[in-house]
Amino acid sequence: MLHIPALEKLVHELSRLPGIGPKTAQRLAYFILKSKESYSTQLSEAIQRVQTEVHTCTECFNYTDRVVCKYCEDNYRTDDLLCVVEEPSDIERIESSGAFRGRYHALHGAISPLEGITAKDLKIPELMTKIDEGVKGLRPQVKEIIFAFDADLEGDTTALYLTKVLQGKSLKISRIAHGIPMGSDIDFIDDRTMGRALENRVQL
Amino acid sequence: MLHIPALEKLVHELSRLPGIGPKTAQRLAYFILKSKESYSTQLSEAIQRVQTEVHTCTECFNYTDRVVCKYCEDNYRTDDLLCVVEEPSDIERIESSGAFRGRYHALHGAISPLEGITAKDLKIPELMTKIDEGVKGLRPQVKEIIFAFDADLEGDTTALYLTKVLQGKSLKISRIAHGIPMGSDIDFIDDRTMGRALENRVQL
Repeated sequence: MLHIPALEKLVHELSRLPGIGPKTAQRLAYFILKSKESYSTQLSEAIQRVQTEVHTCTECFNYTDRVVCKYCEDNYRTDDLLCVVEEPSDIERIESSGAFRGRYHALHGAISPLEGITAKDLKIPELMTKIDEGVKGLRPQVKEIIFAFDADLEGDTTALYLTKVLQGKSLKISRIAHGIPMGSDIDFIDDRTMGRALENRVQL
Repeated sequence: MLHIPALEKLVHELSRLPGIGPKTAQRLAYFILKSKESYSTQLSEAIQRVQTEVHTCTECFNYTDRVVCKYCEDNYRTDDLLCVVEEPSDIERIESSGAFRGRYHALHGAISPLEGITAKDLKIPELMTKIDEGVKGLRPQVKEIIFAFDADLEGDTTALYLTKVLQGKSLKISRIAHGIPMGSDIDFIDDRTMGRALENRVQL
């Protein structure tokens, strides 16, 4: 459509980004073209640099540019409490609430039979090893696990699967609560959230 | 916030793109990080390539990877009809309507006293030279000029300015019509558009 191969290629690559349609990709490409050369150099270098420098933490699979991430390095955290998340970005979300001081484990996805993603495609074997090694005394033992998964089908499936395979390991297992978000109006809550909020009501 | 300089840098560079806020930039950065290395290589190369290969046409200032763009090269176009646009991307928009077979001239912006953009910052001197050279017989003479500017303050200012400076050059000057968009419902048209549509009504 644009008759310039280099420009068409850039539009194509940009439109592969999530939430960027062909029209937005075109607008971004024209912006990059119009901007000073220093910007496109900085942007392309930043993309390359993130792939070279950033990798997953050997302990919890969070993203880091060191060997272990800052949460695994932190000696003031509780070793026996483990929060399992889908994506490394979820860790930042939990951290900024300030309500958790244990360790993390990122699965890098959730079980999805529809997309063909099974336990083996995720960091689930690594999670099992971590727990087993704790039992054997090779590392600090995990006593409680909290699942902080998305409130969708994949999150539910993963929680169900992990609860099953972790049975008999004498762990306290829980999942973060689903209910009315803070500050929201009861009127605008959907049926499923309201159902969960009633089901999981808290004794006062 | 992310505690990884390389990742923070990428989020910063992405959030400079138009319409990309810090939250979206973060999502895109995590996507790039999670994607295979081949994607980030292709994306960063496409960004670099567009800056190296694509430049402005020496005739009309449209973007091209050759010396002159495909519209300036085309011998079947009318030389005496010139369409002046703000951005090169506007040319594609006009072309795809199939309603114009003359030549183009991209100003690369519009006059904006608020942003300090004057005629000299745009390709207006080049437009004047083009017209004057036509009068002197150094190149095909332009007889009619159409302004295809945005329907905003900057577009109005640019059209007004150009109409003034082009006076006395015996040119037919017009601006593309403003009115009700095709297929739209009269009920949803704003007051200013309706005002213009009534003012510029067409005799049947």
